[in-house]
Amino acid sequence: MLRKPDIGRVFHALGDPTRRAILEQLSRGPVSVSQLAEPLAITLAAVVQHLQVLEESGLVQTAKLGRVRTCSLEPGGLNVAAQWIEDRRLHWDRALDHLGKLLDDDEK
Amino acid sequence: MLRKPDIGRVFHALGDPTRRAILEQLSRGPVSVSQLAEPLAITLAAVVQHLQVLEESGLVQTAKLGRVRTCSLEPGGLNVAAQWIEDRRLHWDRALDHLGKLLDDDEK
Repeated sequence: MLRKPDIGRVFHALGDPTRRAILEQLSRGPVSVSQLAEPLAITLAAVVQHLQVLEESGLVQTAKLGRVRTCSLEPGGLNVAAQWIEDRRLHWDRALDHLGKLLDDDEK
Repeated sequence: MLRKPDIGRVFHALGDPTRRAILEQLSRGPVSVSQLAEPLAITLAAVVQHLQVLEESGLVQTAKLGRVRTCSLEPGGLNVAAQWIEDRRLHWDRALDHLGKLLDDDEK
């Protein structure tokens, strides 16, 4: 069962440039761990470690088929982050509207 | 002049629960630093430190008027994060469409 991704873990995972590069590559389609490592110029062990953080935060899913582990983007993690940001922007827009009305009333 | 917020800094700043709590409060409207500190149950010095990270990452603006420093949400930082996430989701949707078409062609 998939738990709802933890917002803190998601943003922490997104704070690292290598993990963002992994997500940028995975957003173009699923690839194997070794294909993922190739353009990153880091060791396979480092990639696996980053993948673990991404998997635990709900941003990536991996599945082993025979001897190959394939990684895919898991939209759940991105959705949680996008929703948190959207909520802040909504509240902020409302706060600005409210301030605007207060100023209007002051002028009357 | 406002530089475009750095995506790594923005996500790093969002990874901390106290900084997210600050942004949640600021999204409801500008407040002074001491008003901000009150519900957080941390020292004023800690709040100031978090505010500095938020300001440097383009998520918050502060302005001093007389003896009071007022903090406001700065939507630029959130916009950069939202855009990065949106780009990933767009690419991913396209990748899924492409995979779907390949499977359809296979079946024919």
